[in-house]
Amino acid sequence: MKWKIGVADTTFAQIDMFKSVEKAVADAQKENPELEIEIVRYTVPGIKDLPVACKSLLSNNKCDIAIALGMPGSMPIDKQCSHEATLGIQQAMLMTNKHILEVFAHADEEADAKALVALVHDRAYKHAKNAVALLKGRTALTAFAGKGLRQGKAHAGSLE
Amino acid sequence: MKWKIGVADTTFAQIDMFKSVEKAVADAQKENPELEIEIVRYTVPGIKDLPVACKSLLSNNKCDIAIALGMPGSMPIDKQCSHEATLGIQQAMLMTNKHILEVFAHADEEADAKALVALVHDRAYKHAKNAVALLKGRTALTAFAGKGLRQGKAHAGSLE
Amino acid sequence: MKWKIGVADTTFAQIDMFKSVEKAVADAQKENPELEIEIVRYTVPGIKDLPVACKSLLSNNKCDIAIALGMPGSMPIDKQCSHEATLGIQQAMLMTNKHILEVFAHADEEADAKALVALVHDRAYKHAKNAVALLKGRTALTAFAGKGLRQGKAHAGSLE
Amino acid sequence: MKWKIGVADTTFAQIDMFKSVEKAVADAQKENPELEIEIVRYTVPGIKDLPVACKSLLSNNKCDIAIALGMPGSMPIDKQCSHEATLGIQQAMLMTNKHILEVFAHADEEADAKALVALVHDRAYKHAKNAVALLKGRTALTAFAGKGLRQGKAHAGSLE
Amino acid sequence: MKWKIGVADTTFAQIDMFKSVEKAVADAQKENPELEIEIVRYTVPGIKDLPVACKSLLSNNKCDIAIALGMPGSMPIDKQCSHEATLGIQQAMLMTNKHILEVFAHADEEADAKALVALVHDRAYKHAKNAVALLKGRTALTAFAGKGLRQGKAHAGSLE
Repeated sequence: MKWKIGVADTTFAQIDMFKSVEKAVADAQKENPELEIEIVRYTVPGIKDLPVACKSLLSNNKCDIAIALGMPGSMPIDKQCSHEATLGIQQAMLMTNKHILEVFAHADEEADAKALVALVHDRAYKHAKNAVALLKGRTALTAFAGKGLRQGKAHAGSLE
Repeated sequence: MKWKIGVADTTFAQIDMFKSVEKAVADAQKENPELEIEIVRYTVPGIKDLPVACKSLLSNNKCDIAIALGMPGSMPIDKQCSHEATLGIQQAMLMTNKHILEVFAHADEEADAKALVALVHDRAYKHAKNAVALLKGRTALTAFAGKGLRQGKAHAGSLE
Repeated sequence: MKWKIGVADTTFAQIDMFKSVEKAVADAQKENPELEIEIVRYTVPGIKDLPVACKSLLSNNKCDIAIALGMPGSMPIDKQCSHEATLGIQQAMLMTNKHILEVFAHADEEADAKALVALVHDRAYKHAKNAVALLKGRTALTAFAGKGLRQGKAHAGSLE
Repeated sequence: MKWKIGVADTTFAQIDMFKSVEKAVADAQKENPELEIEIVRYTVPGIKDLPVACKSLLSNNKCDIAIALGMPGSMPIDKQCSHEATLGIQQAMLMTNKHILEVFAHADEEADAKALVALVHDRAYKHAKNAVALLKGRTALTAFAGKGLRQGKAHAGSLE
Repeated sequence: MKWKIGVADTTFAQIDMFKSVEKAVADAQKENPELEIEIVRYTVPGIKDLPVACKSLLSNNKCDIAIALGMPGSMPIDKQCSHEATLGIQQAMLMTNKHILEVFAHADEEADAKALVALVHDRAYKHAKNAVALLKGRTALTAFAGKGLRQGKAHAGSLE
């Protein structure tokens, strides 16, 4: 199978999240030699420019799935921008009938920069792996349903 | 009659809500031997991936109704994600003219894990029964209108 | 003239708001013997299921107008559900170019149950009358524009 | 040129905002004798009924622009209704590619009724004038860009 | 290549943001002599009138990209208007598959007027440059991805 993954990122972000996506896709291809995956990248200024970029990747570039990489700041206005971007991403998914995995890392999720960098890359890596799983079909992740998986953090696990 | 119920769940949730849906549908079929119901499952990473999964179940898999199973966390960002997912689900329903029953259980609805597990399964079970009722037609639930029914809790009852 | 009014209500509500709609429509028909009005009812579990039910009444059942009857609870999550339902109702109206009169009564609008029951029925009754007026045309309510009319409460009146 | 301006107002408002729109349009016609303007009015119960009324004026009545007149109350629920109405108006504009000038006056913008009445009429009058300007074309207001114009209040002026 | 950039601004703003867009486009043309760029301007009363103006510039005037210039005030209602305008802009982008760069400067971002004027022009200038970059294609900004670029402020830089 040949797939195209669209990846949109921003110049606003303070971490190059794309490289973790690239690594995850390379690893996924090693684990699934039957998959041939092409990445199509689109860089925009800020988080609110991501929804239309993802829609363009899905519609114009015929990507099968998209990943939106963003790093909202820690001020209330940044939280609001993030919320607005998410609503745009929701709409873009429903208009295209395709997934857009949102990989947003808030500047205040970690107190120090080093921990934030680690969190961001873990989240981007794991969600890129999720994107590959979703390409395989609607039950590729079913074995993990309700298992409390987390991206950017340790898994929370099942309560049962 | 033959019906298809789409069920979307997440790897983020910490409880396997799907099994209560399965049980409710099995029970409903016993109670309504004329109904033949097929469940189509779709597992996604998180709550914000549910709207497009449900829309896909309704549009691509031709399900007659969908159930969205999610467990938002207890932080403000989790509440926001839940709100955003709900808005996507609202749109997905209006685009398909079909119901998507939202079964969201917030991690802070109960103080201890055991009570939360019970709440979650009660809510999922009852809403799966509601889904079957809605398949029967627009007045199948009319006998219970204004009766203060609750899912995940005891019924509140009528004030009249 | 023959009209169809769609009425969607919930099993979550603790008051049977529908009966006040029925009464108002019967009264309106007495006052306007030239109007023949059919009510089409649709009962759903909760408030967030109302938008698609109303859209279905307007699109599939060819109703000319719809009334959405709901009773959100008094917790913050209930307020949020109400807000989300309203946004869905807004969309449903714009997609169908028809009115959906939203009759929502919040559980905390009155301190005691008896007063709440009275408020709810007053609001449902008056809005059902409004629905009939809107069926008559865009200026049927113009004599009352800016007059501070209220549903569920005494009219506020004009400030001029 | 012959134009149609749609004006939607409510029975909830406590001030007859329409008469200031009428006056502004009459004045605009005196100032622009080449313009022939017809006003099409639509009265609805409350603020959340305005978006579909405006869309209907623009789509069904072929108005070139619409004005939405509303007076939300001063309680939190009123603020929320106003927000929801605005989102509906935004959608209605994007669906029709036409302007809907929103003239909302919040009950708590002024402490006493007399001042509120004056504010409301000033806002409605100035926005009706804006509507006429927008009918003339996309640069009719350009001479005032960045000039800090206000409706319902004294102009704020330029900071430069 | 010949491009059209739509620019929508408001009479509400207290600073003429347009002139910085004009300057940036002139500079960009000097730096990229192969680009021929035409600016199409549209002035509206307030921030909530920007989404439909931008959509009109993109759809009716066939602009390739748009810039929305707005200055919300510092009161809570102004923040809400800004949020509502942003949601409209998100929708307008998804409906047209084109970028609308939002250049909003909040009246309370700086304590004194002079600093605010400088911030506003810096933001408008840099975003107009971003618009030109986006016209060149989806990877024109990729060299700056994750670099913490800011408009209206000093760049934040990379955390890595």
